[in-house]
Amino acid sequence: MGEFDLIRRFFTRPAAAPGVALGVGDDCALLQPTPGMQWAISSDMLVEGRHFFAGTDPQRLGHKALAVNLSDLAACGARPRGFTLALALPEANEAWLQTFAQGLLQLADAHDCPLVGGDTTRGPLNLCVTVFGELPTGQALLRSGARAGDDLYVSGHLGDARLALEALLGRIQLPQPLLQAAQWRLEQPTPRVALGLALRGIASSAIDVSDGLLGDLGHVLRASGTGATVDASIAITLIAACADSEGANCQFDLDFLRQCALAGGDDYELLFTAPAALRSAVAQAAQACCTAVTRIGRIEAEPGLRLVDAQGQALDARRYASFDHFG
Amino acid sequence: MGEFDLIRRFFTRPAAAPGVALGVGDDCALLQPTPGMQWAISSDMLVEGRHFFAGTDPQRLGHKALAVNLSDLAACGARPRGFTLALALPEANEAWLQTFAQGLLQLADAHDCPLVGGDTTRGPLNLCVTVFGELPTGQALLRSGARAGDDLYVSGHLGDARLALEALLGRIQLPQPLLQAAQWRLEQPTPRVALGLALRGIASSAIDVSDGLLGDLGHVLRASGTGATVDASIAITLIAACADSEGANCQFDLDFLRQCALAGGDDYELLFTAPAALRSAVAQAAQACCTAVTRIGRIEAEPGLRLVDAQGQALDARRYASFDHFG
Repeated sequence: MGEFDLIRRFFTRPAAAPGVALGVGDDCALLQPTPGMQWAISSDMLVEGRHFFAGTDPQRLGHKALAVNLSDLAACGARPRGFTLALALPEANEAWLQTFAQGLLQLADAHDCPLVGGDTTRGPLNLCVTVFGELPTGQALLRSGARAGDDLYVSGHLGDARLALEALLGRIQLPQPLLQAAQWRLEQPTPRVALGLALRGIASSAIDVSDGLLGDLGHVLRASGTGATVDASIAITLIAACADSEGANCQFDLDFLRQCALAGGDDYELLFTAPAALRSAVAQAAQACCTAVTRIGRIEAEPGLRLVDAQGQALDARRYASFDHFG
Repeated sequence: MGEFDLIRRFFTRPAAAPGVALGVGDDCALLQPTPGMQWAISSDMLVEGRHFFAGTDPQRLGHKALAVNLSDLAACGARPRGFTLALALPEANEAWLQTFAQGLLQLADAHDCPLVGGDTTRGPLNLCVTVFGELPTGQALLRSGARAGDDLYVSGHLGDARLALEALLGRIQLPQPLLQAAQWRLEQPTPRVALGLALRGIASSAIDVSDGLLGDLGHVLRASGTGATVDASIAITLIAACADSEGANCQFDLDFLRQCALAGGDDYELLFTAPAALRSAVAQAAQACCTAVTRIGRIEAEPGLRLVDAQGQALDARRYASFDHFG
């Protein structure tokens, strides 16, 4: 089967999406911007053996390749408009492509975010998605807006993806129900697009948690010129797999659970700040999109990241360093 | 060195480009569309060992990664606005990155096309560029606009990249000056951005020649529902390396030269059609941007691709099949 047949067969949809003047099949895709809006653009590359295991369910992989990019749009408060996919494959495996496309396009449909173009080639398995969104000019949620006195929030859950990773690497044992719950979170992250939209005009800063909570918080603090105190005891309660599946069975020590929650990575939750005066607005925004948000700390004028336990005792934040692809 | 330092160090520029509200360093880049314009988007992935040899000069590679994408914008008649780069590298080699960035950003500067974001990760060498351009709504050059009676043109040169490839694979011998000229064309293609802009309102269809002249022409003919006759004897005169370096030394048979010119691939020239009544307008457009264009055939109502030699005798077009990444 030729390259062009591959593209047509698995990735072309019957009808063009609204606002897409021209989709897959010419030299470029053509998109019509909405007047008064800015474009938000993000690109992420997933490499086999680095970002996912060889043999990962292709449907989940299709989902994740788009999800991690939608998560970046969410962190800016942008509405998805479309995406491109560049795909290197060791061989043109039809069953794999069909399943991969299914996962990819199902998430795309859920967000009205059509595949508008891309590239396929032979090579070591590599997925590169570039996503485009729109937001009213000047209203993007940025990393640089956190101010002393702001509350610090995180959406959803933390640490499950890392828990799954450790189990799949054979470093820890997880009971089957916990493993399944954690693996779902690793392989099927939910981009918090609706929450990002709802937080426009409320959140003072936002970032998505991809490399680990504390590492990503560090980006916010540096960009904003502020510091923060984070309550580690709240963060570990956000490990969903443990909570959902009889946490008592989960025999890990506190330090390991802290590492998962604070530095686990691959969470794709929104970490955001908002003025304390807007607590009810935050709660309403979260409720409106059915996404839990938890206050885990506060922004302070004093630079640096302070981590405390349930008793308010200082913990060493450096123990929970962030995952870094070239670290 | 951490991933984030890598990005900052080699790919961040001192000042934001005009129209780029926010470049590298947040979750998304923010771009401000020009009112009345459409966005043109294209994405290409280059894989080591497939699209370039291991050990290719990183400066040339940086140039080519962007050039092949700018070529897609050119084929639509779009003006470049910015691009993202996702890069998988086996190791964080500073010298390599510096030289790569130099080639990449030099071409970007020449086209006022700033790097606005991207991703770096460890993995088998893979470069994925996604480029964004703008054009007045409804004025894109498409593959589908060729009409019977139109002239068929190609810009610049054909076949040199294939000549270089064959020599580098050890399948042919090329005298050193020829090899250098041909290798330059393989590794440093010139995207015909200015010509694409100049052809808006003149050309009836356009495509960039990436997979080989006849293969790419096939896309135009299918999209337009037309056929064409191409003069192979003109096409082979467009092999620059032979012409520039005493073609008499070039002892290849006619069939091989035809294969290079008609199916070589990696040319990144514009193949376009225009009504015969607009020949002087085409010539003026070409002259205005100092790019040679050559009339190599005509569009006909009868479907199919007819290839003729200098005497007008039919040649078998199927002999010159297009390169296909999964073929």
